[in-house]
Formats: sequence, structure tokens, C-alpha cells
Amino acid sequence: MRIGILGGGQLARMLALGGIPLGAKFVVLEPTQDVCSDDVCEHIVGFYSDTATLDQFADKVDIITYEFENVPSKCANYLSAKKPVYPPPAALEVSCDRLKEKTLFKELGIDTPNFAAIQSLDDLTSALREIGFPSVLKTRTLGYDGKGQAVLRSEADVEVAWAQLGGVDCILEAFVPFTREISVIAVRSRIGETVFYPVSENTHKNGILHKAICRPADPMQKPAEEYIKKLFEKLNYVGVLALELFEMNGKLLANEIAPRVHNTGHWSIEGANTSQFENHIRAITGLPLGDTSPVEFCAMVNFIGETPNAAAVLSIKGAHFHDYGKEAKPGRKLGHASIRRPTKEAMLEGFDKLLSLVN
Amino acid sequence: MRIGILGGGQLARMLALGGIPLGAKFVVLEPTQDVCSDDVCEHIVGFYSDTATLDQFADKVDIITYEFENVPSKCANYLSAKKPVYPPPAALEVSCDRLKEKTLFKELGIDTPNFAAIQSLDDLTSALREIGFPSVLKTRTLGYDGKGQAVLRSEADVEVAWAQLGGVDCILEAFVPFTREISVIAVRSRIGETVFYPVSENTHKNGILHKAICRPADPMQKPAEEYIKKLFEKLNYVGVLALELFEMNGKLLANEIAPRVHNTGHWSIEGANTSQFENHIRAITGLPLGDTSPVEFCAMVNFIGETPNAAAVLSIKGAHFHDYGKEAKPGRKLGHASIRRPTKEAMLEGFDKLLSLVN
Repeated sequence: MRIGILGGGQLARMLALGGIPLGAKFVVLEPTQDVCSDDVCEHIVGFYSDTATLDQFADKVDIITYEFENVPSKCANYLSAKKPVYPPPAALEVSCDRLKEKTLFKELGIDTPNFAAIQSLDDLTSALREIGFPSVLKTRTLGYDGKGQAVLRSEADVEVAWAQLGGVDCILEAFVPFTREISVIAVRSRIGETVFYPVSENTHKNGILHKAICRPADPMQKPAEEYIKKLFEKLNYVGVLALELFEMNGKLLANEIAPRVHNTGHWSIEGANTSQFENHIRAITGLPLGDTSPVEFCAMVNFIGETPNAAAVLSIKGAHFHDYGKEAKPGRKLGHASIRRPTKEAMLEGFDKLLSLVN
Repeated sequence: MRIGILGGGQLARMLALGGIPLGAKFVVLEPTQDVCSDDVCEHIVGFYSDTATLDQFADKVDIITYEFENVPSKCANYLSAKKPVYPPPAALEVSCDRLKEKTLFKELGIDTPNFAAIQSLDDLTSALREIGFPSVLKTRTLGYDGKGQAVLRSEADVEVAWAQLGGVDCILEAFVPFTREISVIAVRSRIGETVFYPVSENTHKNGILHKAICRPADPMQKPAEEYIKKLFEKLNYVGVLALELFEMNGKLLANEIAPRVHNTGHWSIEGANTSQFENHIRAITGLPLGDTSPVEFCAMVNFIGETPNAAAVLSIKGAHFHDYGKEAKPGRKLGHASIRRPTKEAMLEGFDKLLSLVN
């Protein structure tokens, strides 16, 4: 089985590391030369808009998937006429546009922060009357890792933010004074089997995920799963889906979905019976899904912009080190470390040591 | 860190899968085109005897290791003048020659079956007076997976066996009516740290490993570790070492060592906190060694000559599937499956199901 991946970053790399043991071979389509998936994937260098490149890519593989949600819809549709593309391109359409995403949540009865479509400064001014301050103005498309958004705390921020985001189509969302940020990663296979990973409790720093802790038997597990089941059905979904949520006063508000393996699920490599990466490959190739239940207790921290000393990390009992082999740049995800221990106390103790090594 | 591996089979493949997450890159030197390490390693095609090839290989890497013990000593010595070679070439010299190996065991006070050096039919006849029938005649070198040996049950077998093995230098060993075959895999790092995996209880079929079951807290763990400590010290060892032993009436007899990652340790990928593959890479790169303690209960079975249906294997709870991506041939190791479950009973129940799917 030859699997094509659009995008050649660390998610492609870890998908291949999860799928090669199953006998799969991987081909990445990615415009940048020398990417970190090169260690484990064949690499076609070319643009997602170039049909000759897309033909060459599609001819080489049996199934196509992707590692980022901003795949141009033209590209996804062109490829899906040639080879099966999973998750379905419909999921891309929704997830790459914050307005479509929130509108779908609303339509499915999934609670979200209040929101309004913004196409002009006038729209913004009138929407603010309803949603109020503080609120968050976000571009509809191309936002990730905190990019493409601005917090509005008072009238003084309004025009600045609108100008800063470039006057493109936006969405205004009520600011949520959340108790916790959590995510649930779920998998649906080609044969309709569905499994859920335990809740991950997430902390961001400067808009980028800093750490994620696996929380087995969390009270928010069931309501989050109910939300995901609605999305799976509506989108006729195949593959891994991540749903990010805010918890506020015991209530869950959906923030966004990612139709792909997700940074908040990296702990599953060591911390679950089957990793999100292996399960994504099983799902799209029609294999039975693997057990998602946690193995001991687990948490993970990202390396952003700087990689800690491997020997220091690995001298912590139960620590595992993941270096993506990328060149260091400020704000760039360079790797992560996880810790897995038989008791919660031992895990949290080790995790504290680990956090002290990571910026 | 760029790591060179002599040999491009499944052990090289799994070493790379274990080491790439640590940020290592792998280059294989292997005379055969299209080998199963190609999915995860750069591949230099060339002969181990060709110094130009060896130069090219050594120039590309920082450290050299190997996945088989029949590396020509000339090759190992040539390379070790250029780059660090781990495990040390001295371990190769011993392990590729059954007579040197058994002699070293004896010298270190490690119990072995009775043995004698055989260079002629006369030697054989006179050694048989001491060792008796049944016994096993083995070529000193180039034996693996049951090749290069013949069982002598009576006088009638003697001349036939001598002729069959080609009249080369041999060793005659007493046949051991063992209770169990076990192995212990151990790791010693460049900084002298030493760790041991739990006993693996092994069953062979036609001279090839069929299954291996991890036996935590086995009464033979300590005596096996004592043997290995002597070998580590004598050989100034670095890397993974496997010691295969016969248990007979509560006593351990050393059968052979392998100075490399070992088939009886494949369960460690899922079944130990750190796999033998990752720990070999940590050992030779000078990183702290990982925890070898078992994660739940685990066992594994080899796919020999035929690969079972992946979907059938993966529908067993806790099963993991490893397809080496090799062309099927009779007697060839094509992959393995492991099972990991929280209780011994659940593991053995799942393992029975797994065994029923594998020839």
C-alpha cells in the first residue's frame, strides 16, 4: 500500500513512522526542498496548484491524505477524482474556514462561543454591540498557531485590529474566559468503526501549543464524544479528527476542528495502546482500528524554537524524546518530549522535571 | 548524528525506526539492491570487502554499527580505524566463531554444553567418545537460523554429517535436553551504563525462532545477568547484546551471543518502556539508556515465509503488526506480530488467537 501525503512536516514524518511498520510506503507532495519527512518518505517537490505534479503524485500512490487543513480545495478535488482522498475534502472545506466551521457547529447543535461574520468595519462595529468586549477577531482562512487573530479589549482596538488583519473576511468571536482548554482526538475508519482517545488537557503559550496532558476518565469525555459523533456523521468522515474545546463552568464550547493528526495527540505515541498516527493509517487503509486506551499516565511538551539537551531529557525516567530534524527558528515546532509512568504522581513529578528543561 | 549500519535487513529497518525519532539519520551499507531498510535509510550498494565503498560509507556517518555478526573482521577493522564501530569488533570475532564463543564462555566461568574442536573425522570420532550421542556438529562460522548444523544420534550419522557440513572446521556440542530456551537482552552504553530486559522464553521451529514470550521476574533473570556482566566487562562492550541460553533442571547453559539487536527482543517495541532498537541507538550515541521494564504483558510471533492477514491480526485486542516489506520466500522472516495486554491471562488468550493465524 502506497500512501500519499500532502505536506512534508513533522506530522507527515510521524504518520510514516506509524505506518511503515504496517508495511505502508509513503510519498509526500510538498513544495519545499529538504523537509523533515524526507527521512521516511519519498518526496515530490512541486506546487499543489500544478496539475502535472498532482498527476505524478496521484499515479504513485493508492490513497491520499494530508497533514494540514489549508490544502487548496481545487487540489483536493482534482486528486479525489483520481484516488481516494481521506479525510473527505468536505472536511477540508469546513475546517479551513472559521465561519463555515462555527456555522456547522451551530447547525449540528454543538455549542460554540457567540460569533458573527465580518466583511467590513461596519459589520464589526455592529457585531460588537451584540458580542461585546473582550472578543477575538479572526481571519476566516489561513489562521493557525495563533496567527491571523487579534483580541479586542475595548473600542480603541477595533480599527487597529481590522487594519492589522488586512481587511479580509473575518469572524468575530466572543472571548471565552475558559477554565481549561481540552481536545479529543477521534478516529473513524473506512468501514465506519469509531474510536476516541482520552481527553487531552492543553496549555498554549503565545498561541502555540505548549503542553498536553492525557486525562483518562475525564468528565468532559462523553459530551466531547457526542459532538464528534455528529461531525463524523455529517461529514461522512474517515481518518483522525481533532476537536478543540473550551471548558467553562462545566460546559463545553467547540473552538475548532482539525481534519488530521493533531499536536495535542502526540502523547499517544507512547501513551496510548495505538498512536493517533498508526490509527490514522489503519482508518484510511480500511484496517481495524487499534485500542485507544491509555497505557499508564502520560503527558507531552513541545520544543518551540529551541531543542533541550537530549541527554538531560532522557535521564528522566519514562521520558521519550522526539526530534523532528528541523532547523531551529524562533516559534518553530522542532520536536516534543513525552513522559509515561505507571502512576499519576510519578508522571506529574517527571513531567515537572521535563518542563524545567524546556523553554 | 548520522549512523551507519552494515546490513540492510529488518534489523536495520527497525533500528532506524527506533532512532529517527531521536533525530538520528541512517545510512546502510549492503550489497543487495532494494532491501527493506530502504524505506527509512539511505543505501550505499557495495561490498564489505571493497575499500572504496567502505571509505564512502565511513565518510557519510559519525558512528558505525551492524545488524549481523558475520561482518568480515577485515571490514570491521578497516572501518574502526576511521569511525567508532559499536559493538566493538572484538565482539564480532567471538560471536561469528562458535568455538571462540564457547571457549570464551568457559574462560569466564559461564556454563555451556560440553564441546570440542573438530578439524577432521578423526577429531570427531575421538570427541564423540567423551561427549557421546546425541550431540550436535556445527560449523564454527557462518551458521544462523539452524543452518550449518547436524544432529548426531548414532554412529550411522557421523560420516554423513561430516560430509554434509563440507569438512570445514567444526565444533561438536553435547545435545542439551533443555526444559526451556530463553534469552536475555542487555545494553551497555558508551558511558558504561548497563540495563537488562526481562527474560524472553523462546520457541523455535525448524531452527528458526517462532515465538518469544516476555517473562518478567523470571527466576533465571539474575543468573543470566551475571553471565552477561562478565561478557560486557571482558569485551568492553557497547550496544545491545543478546545471550541465548538453555535451561536444564534449573541450571543455565549459555548457547550463543549475538552482538546486535535480536529477534527474541522484538516484543520490546510495544512491550518495554524503551525498545531494544531505541536503546541500541542511545547506547552507541552516548545517551542515557531507557527503562527496560515491561509495559503490561507481551509476546510476539514471527511471520516465516508467509504473512497472515493484517486485518485478522489487528482485530485482536492489543495486537500490533510488523510487516518488513520483504518479498515472500519459504523460510524467510517477513514480519512479526506482538500482543500487549494488562493481565497475563488476557495476553495469553490474545496470543493464542494470534498464533492460530500464523503458520
